[in-house]
Amino acid sequence: MGMVGGGIGSFIGDVHRKASMMDGLIELVCGAFSSTPEKSKKSGKALFLPEDRCYASFEEMILKEKELPKGERMDFIAIVTPNHMHFGPAKLALENGFHVVCDKPMTLTIEESETLVSLVENTGLHFALTHNYTGYPMVKQAKTMIQKGDLGKIRKVQVQYLQGWMATDVENTDNKQASWRVDPSKSGIGGALGDIGTHAENLLEYITGLKIAELAADLGRFGKGRILDDDGNILVRLDNGAKGTMSFSQIATGEENNLAIRVYGEKGSLEWGQEEPNKLLTRWLDKPLKVFTPGGNDLYEEAQTNRVPSGHPEGYLEAFATIYRNFAINLMAELNGEPSPQKEYPTVKDGLRGVKFMYAAVQSDKNNTAWTPLS
Amino acid sequence: MGMVGGGIGSFIGDVHRKASMMDGLIELVCGAFSSTPEKSKKSGKALFLPEDRCYASFEEMILKEKELPKGERMDFIAIVTPNHMHFGPAKLALENGFHVVCDKPMTLTIEESETLVSLVENTGLHFALTHNYTGYPMVKQAKTMIQKGDLGKIRKVQVQYLQGWMATDVENTDNKQASWRVDPSKSGIGGALGDIGTHAENLLEYITGLKIAELAADLGRFGKGRILDDDGNILVRLDNGAKGTMSFSQIATGEENNLAIRVYGEKGSLEWGQEEPNKLLTRWLDKPLKVFTPGGNDLYEEAQTNRVPSGHPEGYLEAFATIYRNFAINLMAELNGEPSPQKEYPTVKDGLRGVKFMYAAVQSDKNNTAWTPLS
Amino acid sequence: MGMVGGGIGSFIGDVHRKASMMDGLIELVCGAFSSTPEKSKKSGKALFLPEDRCYASFEEMILKEKELPKGERMDFIAIVTPNHMHFGPAKLALENGFHVVCDKPMTLTIEESETLVSLVENTGLHFALTHNYTGYPMVKQAKTMIQKGDLGKIRKVQVQYLQGWMATDVENTDNKQASWRVDPSKSGIGGALGDIGTHAENLLEYITGLKIAELAADLGRFGKGRILDDDGNILVRLDNGAKGTMSFSQIATGEENNLAIRVYGEKGSLEWGQEEPNKLLTRWLDKPLKVFTPGGNDLYEEAQTNRVPSGHPEGYLEAFATIYRNFAINLMAELNGEPSPQKEYPTVKDGLRGVKFMYAAVQSDKNNTAWTPLS
Amino acid sequence: MGMVGGGIGSFIGDVHRKASMMDGLIELVCGAFSSTPEKSKKSGKALFLPEDRCYASFEEMILKEKELPKGERMDFIAIVTPNHMHFGPAKLALENGFHVVCDKPMTLTIEESETLVSLVENTGLHFALTHNYTGYPMVKQAKTMIQKGDLGKIRKVQVQYLQGWMATDVENTDNKQASWRVDPSKSGIGGALGDIGTHAENLLEYITGLKIAELAADLGRFGKGRILDDDGNILVRLDNGAKGTMSFSQIATGEENNLAIRVYGEKGSLEWGQEEPNKLLTRWLDKPLKVFTPGGNDLYEEAQTNRVPSGHPEGYLEAFATIYRNFAINLMAELNGEPSPQKEYPTVKDGLRGVKFMYAAVQSDKNNTAWTPLS
Repeated sequence: MGMVGGGIGSFIGDVHRKASMMDGLIELVCGAFSSTPEKSKKSGKALFLPEDRCYASFEEMILKEKELPKGERMDFIAIVTPNHMHFGPAKLALENGFHVVCDKPMTLTIEESETLVSLVENTGLHFALTHNYTGYPMVKQAKTMIQKGDLGKIRKVQVQYLQGWMATDVENTDNKQASWRVDPSKSGIGGALGDIGTHAENLLEYITGLKIAELAADLGRFGKGRILDDDGNILVRLDNGAKGTMSFSQIATGEENNLAIRVYGEKGSLEWGQEEPNKLLTRWLDKPLKVFTPGGNDLYEEAQTNRVPSGHPEGYLEAFATIYRNFAINLMAELNGEPSPQKEYPTVKDGLRGVKFMYAAVQSDKNNTAWTPLS
Repeated sequence: MGMVGGGIGSFIGDVHRKASMMDGLIELVCGAFSSTPEKSKKSGKALFLPEDRCYASFEEMILKEKELPKGERMDFIAIVTPNHMHFGPAKLALENGFHVVCDKPMTLTIEESETLVSLVENTGLHFALTHNYTGYPMVKQAKTMIQKGDLGKIRKVQVQYLQGWMATDVENTDNKQASWRVDPSKSGIGGALGDIGTHAENLLEYITGLKIAELAADLGRFGKGRILDDDGNILVRLDNGAKGTMSFSQIATGEENNLAIRVYGEKGSLEWGQEEPNKLLTRWLDKPLKVFTPGGNDLYEEAQTNRVPSGHPEGYLEAFATIYRNFAINLMAELNGEPSPQKEYPTVKDGLRGVKFMYAAVQSDKNNTAWTPLS
Repeated sequence: MGMVGGGIGSFIGDVHRKASMMDGLIELVCGAFSSTPEKSKKSGKALFLPEDRCYASFEEMILKEKELPKGERMDFIAIVTPNHMHFGPAKLALENGFHVVCDKPMTLTIEESETLVSLVENTGLHFALTHNYTGYPMVKQAKTMIQKGDLGKIRKVQVQYLQGWMATDVENTDNKQASWRVDPSKSGIGGALGDIGTHAENLLEYITGLKIAELAADLGRFGKGRILDDDGNILVRLDNGAKGTMSFSQIATGEENNLAIRVYGEKGSLEWGQEEPNKLLTRWLDKPLKVFTPGGNDLYEEAQTNRVPSGHPEGYLEAFATIYRNFAINLMAELNGEPSPQKEYPTVKDGLRGVKFMYAAVQSDKNNTAWTPLS
Repeated sequence: MGMVGGGIGSFIGDVHRKASMMDGLIELVCGAFSSTPEKSKKSGKALFLPEDRCYASFEEMILKEKELPKGERMDFIAIVTPNHMHFGPAKLALENGFHVVCDKPMTLTIEESETLVSLVENTGLHFALTHNYTGYPMVKQAKTMIQKGDLGKIRKVQVQYLQGWMATDVENTDNKQASWRVDPSKSGIGGALGDIGTHAENLLEYITGLKIAELAADLGRFGKGRILDDDGNILVRLDNGAKGTMSFSQIATGEENNLAIRVYGEKGSLEWGQEEPNKLLTRWLDKPLKVFTPGGNDLYEEAQTNRVPSGHPEGYLEAFATIYRNFAINLMAELNGEPSPQKEYPTVKDGLRGVKFMYAAVQSDKNNTAWTPLS
């Protein structure tokens, strides 16, 4: 793995490194950790990388690595930069035969995303988008239960992603996380919408297996002087006729990382939240509430992805690592000429979907919350 | 107290009786418990009432009781009938000098509600609307905290009221509760909207002290053949600029009586749910989560309404009883010629507000979810 | 009902009144509310009782009421005094043909309790002990599940009753609740042991249907100058071979009224706590955790004692009221010459059991925590 | 790091590997993964180790590695074998100048533990015992709060460790985890006592900073034919006069990994459980309940050990990794000739303490639960 972005001090770079290495399948072999060449070198050194594989830019990394012999060169790149720096490295990597793991939202524009979709389809390369919350075992159980019809036809959904860390004007302090997120040139057309709204959208479509057909959005800009949204409330209609609400915010004072979802079907319903990820609540027409736990009783095989026994909590890093593990397993099979185990993770198409979602929400918001298709 | 409706077997009639009598301030002295005279008599007998005060109709009750000497006749009526039977008894009672406790939604139409508002204003009679969830101590704590500015300016709200008991077509079984609720002639223009949506609306405005300025509604009719909504998702904008979502449903499979609210201010936020009513979660910019409990530490005086010490849970009946208790205390002061203790409970104006909310939601839904003012 | 003790201002007197009246089956007709005759009169007046039925002493009440014609006189007495004042009124009432509801612990000594047991057996009168926590629907569900063998043979138990209100020396303030509880002449040989330890003991035996065969106790006296225990830790062995712990305290700082129990059988286990009484957690060898709720799915008939639908919380007063309701139903059947509905509630034998438990615990504690039989 | 035990398929070996590598400070360089040489080789190969560093025995590993040049040879060994195989490798490693990380309970006998304590003291080598639950941020916050006096003098404790996985006779299936645990020759004198009771003991002493002065134990053997305990209930008295209960079990049907503790002081109390490790509940004489979270507000510096922001749950592996991280940081400082950062983790003395605890509990149990000192 070669990393783009994620120099020492970067929150998400460290997460990607820990997650990718957790299962002993992936090794960090090179990186272009910063747009400042010296910083990139320094970061690479701190990560015990050989100096000649700490590159000054992603272009240099991709082109130089390509010249290395197979087996020695990196197999894929992991893109962990701010949003505006996803498309360039992803495109160049795909064009040069490297697989890609990319953070979300995938690109700034729909066109860029469509370009990546085409490149992936044409090259057959692997592309994983780190919608990491899909990596939790109980999310996989939820998805599978709905897929198998346990809940019956889905009628109603609620999804929310609430944070409070931008309730004050942190972008005017030295908070690096905040400053690029409020800057449209780096973040794109969405603020909280892109940063966490896309997670909510992805989780909803991932778990239900349904698509948002149209939405009606009311975005908020509560922080003084903010151009981009820091809050949003959205009505959704799914392609099977279900209806629901989505709410996200980075000004929800006191909330930490409250991503949560409820799905109601004709026969049963389920509830999951990221802050207590190791239980999945299910409610039923004619049975008491049942709570599933990782490694616990009656799980579908798809949910048996945890590394430690039931009652030993897994968290954010492990869920993130499951994306990488599945990506690596598929990739290794291919490198070994074996049939694909078809391990599942969010793909370039989910990335396109997320960007379209952002555009639809922004358009609806501008049109006085008019219903806007998301197709 | 004279009761209109609530014959033996009625769920809500029994609730009103238990709630009104809990604090030893109110006595049931007469009733018109059913539109069928024999049933009314039978119910009255079972309640140990003298036969001559079990009336064949509310008209008879009001007019006959009026002829009794003061001190002997009922002081007020409690209206616990289906929605379409609220206005008639309320109007007649007010016109004949009786105070009123009335269930919600107050009337079928805005005009009817306005008539009652006028009558109350002109007569000076007391009128309580049983938005019973406002009676919980932690709801009062929440309201007071916001009033005192503890949370700072409110920015975001979420309110929901989720039930699952109509997820199947219970109205086609012998479920009396369901059958009138799906019948527009008895329920009015709202189904779940009137039955529980108005509770959500009232709780939101009660706790925040703010008004819904406009809303955008998407109502659902998931039950086969239902004319009225059984589900709704609504975006709201409050009169101070806050934004939020409201969601209610009677087809949320597996949910029991999940009324819950979250309110986010600039300095803090709070969360309360009816199914675990004895805790109020509060989150803060710079302090850990704090959980208030009835009778516990640091409560405002307004919240000290519980009857038993902290840790001894109070529930639905006690909250309901607090409405009656406050109503009775004010009334007794007046009857005794004392200054009003100004105990607080939802009033005829809240009733009008709820009916306007229903009409705005229905109108928005018909107008393709257009923003619709609620004034 | 005639009440002994419970004058205006008494916490538990008010609880008994509300609980007894909740279901409309019981009426307070007289009382000896205080050992000070004027206070008794004053309390009676505030409760709207006729002056001639506000008695100066329990002796006067019992003897005078006895002279009233049947149907007019009280049917039973409710004893809500401090511990040392239970035996006298109970004995006199039974000797004069009155049924009894009595608070716990039943008496100060085993001999007194045995006297009451004999009196009840010889007279055939009804005697209910207000171990009110047995009145919760989920406690009844727990009991029934174990009775039906759902959990298999019971192996392990944990029961605790933790309060913090005596963590400081409240008995030196004007706290009436505290002052008699630390006084052996009024409280008996047990402090927290009698006040709440007996609840824990009763709940354990009630739910499991098993008896504590022996115990090993370590009592604490943490409050300065306290003669009686304010804390206790006890090992228990049940008569079927199960083992477990019991812990109670009134110096557990910050706890409100944390009575909780866990029972482990060969096939499943259950967990219930009084502060969130409306859920019963059950865990299983081969199934996910299931949570039962009052009025919810799959309950045994014995647990269907709630007054409002599922999701509408019942609390402390309702559970308390269920003791009174069951007592009244049995009594009314007898008064009407009907066969007994055999409604269930804690009896005089449970009272004897509780007093024996106190003595065994105190003896074990004195004997350096030696195993002490409880027979 | 060289590993002893933990061949492929071993649960705890994999945990140690993931935990040790999480923070990028430790590398697995060699191992004696199994007592069967071929298995050891095979495991080493699967872990991408060079063949010549996959040793046939721990003796071979220690002696051969010692011959390698400094900087190339392993710095420490990690012992992840069943209990009876801890002492041998630990002793040999210390005698040959290698630092040690060892699983718990440390040894089978007190004498062995004392030998290790002496060796550590005499050699000055580092020794970490993986009482991994001390690695949770909220456990560190709890410890620090008590240390700083926030709770006042400690009066009461409750600790429990409940599992249900041995509720049936799993040792007669192919469950490798179970079979050695019920075998005294491998497990030692304690069954559940050694396996999880020592965790409970350690957590209690770690958090409170107090020592168990004496205990009274009642051990159970519920599984058919089991020689060792699979359940225990213990009364404890701490060296400051506090009292409490300890309960552990591996036959607590339905429990997963329910390690939990409550500590009550004169001014406040706290509650923490391993299954929801990311919250610490604190209760107070005169303030509402406060809940601390990793990365959240008002934490002591000692608790700021999490790797991801608040609301991003860390779990079992991260807590485990914190032991390794602290061990590595101290070790690296020493290797670099820097002053020790004095990072904290359980040591060889905690190991001795745990073994003494086991012996005291077994002795008390044999002596009919007599109070037995633990010194």
